[in-house]
Amino acid sequence: MSSSTEEHFLAASAEYQKTFGDKGSLATPPVKKLIVVTCMDSRINVVAHLGLKEGDAHIIRNAGGSAKDALRSIIVSQRMLGTREIAVFHHTQCGMLSVTTDQIRKTVKDSDPQNDALKAVNNIDFLEFSDLEGSVKKDVEFLKENPLVLKETKVTGWVYEVETGKIRRIV
Amino acid sequence: MSSSTEEHFLAASAEYQKTFGDKGSLATPPVKKLIVVTCMDSRINVVAHLGLKEGDAHIIRNAGGSAKDALRSIIVSQRMLGTREIAVFHHTQCGMLSVTTDQIRKTVKDSDPQNDALKAVNNIDFLEFSDLEGSVKKDVEFLKENPLVLKETKVTGWVYEVETGKIRRIV
Repeated sequence: MSSSTEEHFLAASAEYQKTFGDKGSLATPPVKKLIVVTCMDSRINVVAHLGLKEGDAHIIRNAGGSAKDALRSIIVSQRMLGTREIAVFHHTQCGMLSVTTDQIRKTVKDSDPQNDALKAVNNIDFLEFSDLEGSVKKDVEFLKENPLVLKETKVTGWVYEVETGKIRRIV
Repeated sequence: MSSSTEEHFLAASAEYQKTFGDKGSLATPPVKKLIVVTCMDSRINVVAHLGLKEGDAHIIRNAGGSAKDALRSIIVSQRMLGTREIAVFHHTQCGMLSVTTDQIRKTVKDSDPQNDALKAVNNIDFLEFSDLEGSVKKDVEFLKENPLVLKETKVTGWVYEVETGKIRRIV
């Protein structure tokens, strides 16, 4: 952590606390009984573009917005904290559209060819995709078919456009 | 997805687009070369409480803010998109402080004892923790020692207090 990042965090937090109001009394289960799964991409401000506020929804973010990668968290959310809807968002210009697992594994291993510990990367499936809308449909399907996801869950799939800020429902 | 959730999303998105400005020209690599790992908890508005804006940082969120669960995404972020700092946040009143993997597995299997497919939950480690500050230290250690995380990465660990909106650096 550069000291500038730490200073930035502390100053921003002091500002945030000024308008914190009564948020400290919010309970742990999300009010909307909703999970949003989306990408870690820096251009996505999911709370703002979906009009969510503190207390509304669980937000799971990872490289690509992968539902498979989110399964552990989804089970906790549904079984322990009562959520019943899942909205999966993938987005245009996603990094996971332009890489493959083989490329990432090679990049990691080539960075230090003498280091055998880097071979651990061969055990990771990076869950890339080449078709944006297809990847959304596939993730929705994964959630609808997975026995560990509650049968009564409403699952929808969306695309977020980083060029315009627009959203579009796919399924 | 209840139609009310869908309507809420579309109305919020229309509002967001009004102030979208020139965000459409932001590039994929995060400007601050920063990753924030935090919990999916609905009370955490990470962009607001850390003063981040679109384009600044990758944000990875899962149940508990687990660094281990985030490893795939961290490798993509560092190797493909140039990030060099990681800030791990866990928080007070976290759901992962009050459950165990055994309890979650039992809850899932007991929900439909005749359904053998639910036994798949036995393969999932839910990555709970019983000591908040200790869990932050452990996750920072995990990242510093993991060979797949770049050696030169600056890693810090923090607690976010849902009662007050405050942050506190642990390591």
